Amino acid sequence: MKQILRLLCAIVLTATVHAQARDPLASWNDGPTKRRIVAFVTAVIEQGGKDFVPPPERIAVFDNDGTLWVEQPIYAQFGFAFDRVKALAPSHPEWKIEAPFNDVLEGNLKAVAASGEAALVKLLIATNTGTTTAEFTQEVSDWMARAKHPRFKRPYTDLAYQPMIELLTYLRENGFRTYIVSGGTVEFMRPWTDRVYGIPAEQVIGTTFVTRYDKQPDGVPVLLREPKIDFMDNGPGKPVAIQQTIGRRPILAFGNSDGDEEMLEWVAAGDTLHFEALVHHTDAVREYAYDRMSDVGRLDHALDEAKANKWAIVDMKRDWKQIFAFEGTAR
Amino acid sequence: MKQILRLLCAIVLTATVHAQARDPLASWNDGPTKRRIVAFVTAVIEQGGKDFVPPPERIAVFDNDGTLWVEQPIYAQFGFAFDRVKALAPSHPEWKIEAPFNDVLEGNLKAVAASGEAALVKLLIATNTGTTTAEFTQEVSDWMARAKHPRFKRPYTDLAYQPMIELLTYLRENGFRTYIVSGGTVEFMRPWTDRVYGIPAEQVIGTTFVTRYDKQPDGVPVLLREPKIDFMDNGPGKPVAIQQTIGRRPILAFGNSDGDEEMLEWVAAGDTLHFEALVHHTDAVREYAYDRMSDVGRLDHALDEAKANKWAIVDMKRDWKQIFAFEGTAR
Repeated sequence: MKQILRLLCAIVLTATVHAQARDPLASWNDGPTKRRIVAFVTAVIEQGGKDFVPPPERIAVFDNDGTLWVEQPIYAQFGFAFDRVKALAPSHPEWKIEAPFNDVLEGNLKAVAASGEAALVKLLIATNTGTTTAEFTQEVSDWMARAKHPRFKRPYTDLAYQPMIELLTYLRENGFRTYIVSGGTVEFMRPWTDRVYGIPAEQVIGTTFVTRYDKQPDGVPVLLREPKIDFMDNGPGKPVAIQQTIGRRPILAFGNSDGDEEMLEWVAAGDTLHFEALVHHTDAVREYAYDRMSDVGRLDHALDEAKANKWAIVDMKRDWKQIFAFEGTAR
Repeated sequence: MKQILRLLCAIVLTATVHAQARDPLASWNDGPTKRRIVAFVTAVIEQGGKDFVPPPERIAVFDNDGTLWVEQPIYAQFGFAFDRVKALAPSHPEWKIEAPFNDVLEGNLKAVAASGEAALVKLLIATNTGTTTAEFTQEVSDWMARAKHPRFKRPYTDLAYQPMIELLTYLRENGFRTYIVSGGTVEFMRPWTDRVYGIPAEQVIGTTFVTRYDKQPDGVPVLLREPKIDFMDNGPGKPVAIQQTIGRRPILAFGNSDGDEEMLEWVAAGDTLHFEALVHHTDAVREYAYDRMSDVGRLDHALDEAKANKWAIVDMKRDWKQIFAFEGTAR
């Protein structure tokens, strides 16, 4: 028995040493932001502690574009839309003189990005609807497998931020459920969020199109994506969608733009300990640097509010040791 | 060592015997319906079996009124609405001559039940909106704590069907996630579904009201319930809501009325092994007996479709040994 006990003890001790050695947020520099995150998680999971939050209430919400992955020079969903416009152009001769389609066909991305919400919605509707939900999922999967980001020349799904992937994992290991709450459309994200972020389909909240139940001539039921926005999950829409879908107020929220302001305010008004953070794009060398003047992911009013309310501001350049998994760890 | 091994074996064997002795569906009579349910679950959880479905895809959806709890003589949500009408009537003198409010005030439930969808929506809007989400949750909780069902003289939450509670538990023990997909409104159900069914807020799908993010004069954000239906989760709306919220096709669905027909059709069109069932109210002594002619929970077209497609039909009188937990088990 003594030998067996000794062996067991050795195994337990080794496991403990390994657990201590592993830093769950290894890509974060050891600065104030990382320390605030760890202090928050430590406090809410401490059984019997004054800030303890039971697991079902440990809801964490994340914006996607610019918070979990790259959104410059334009949102990935528009990369998809542009490729669809090019593919569909032969049957739409009118697009040659109709904005924003003509800008897309001429490769004038700056003009598209600056064309305003109504034009962008028109573009989304023309390229993201008119099919069944199953067909659209296949289109997105096919595109994700072959499309490359214009600057990084890699699949968009390679451009998820390694520190944020670590944060999502760290939260889940501590009993949190992690949700995406994005201005992007739900069905553009679901085909790959589980693989890239470990976030399953039912924890992806986003903009939706009106969807209609119908039957094919052979009687098989289908869901048709209609050319009309159902719900715009941006700005004040985000807390509304959180309430409708989750029905609990999250205790942690990460965003990166003015479109996330109300979501962070809503979390900040909770009764338990809570955590709000903005990812601030400050690294033009490794990623991009932009905030108040950007057409894509503008961070202006929310930046002032973050400072006034002492929300955490992630400084990408200073806080992140590594941005992408493909950089490798030897830096 | 020998002694320890013997002891271990004794523990394991005892545990096995206990596991075999416990029937997870004890309130179901041992008939064809129960056998079909068990055969389905056994097949989809069999690792390596031809019908194996991995846990993330084991989604089970349940209608609520008439499927998980009593819906006669009228849906509980209307019991709530009637009490609200009575409470609010002093400030609405016009209701004395306006249908369906006058029928409510005169206690003419049959007239209310037969007044049609537009009138019922008017009633819901007058009694379920105009407050913040937090205030409404409190109103529902208070009402549930004191309201009594007119026939059973018990809280509505006592009128959940014991066989269905057992089924929900049995499915969860076998790796399923259980969802409610109800024509009732989401925020009328969430305050009590976890306690009664073990179904948490984020797994409750239902009809929603337009909700608006606003700030109180002191700057505290609130979500306001506006007097307008956002999404009607009934009939063809059910598969749509399932797709928007869960993003996966369920493999099991239970309903009890024509409003569940499209949900069952959608599940029946899946690629994996799937299971569809209707609860048929056949027991006027212990509960109620109704189907094709009922204003509440009409089951007509869907009953024909169930027969044509060999969906399971739960005959309450024959299939359920016990209907409510309060009946006791000695029958």
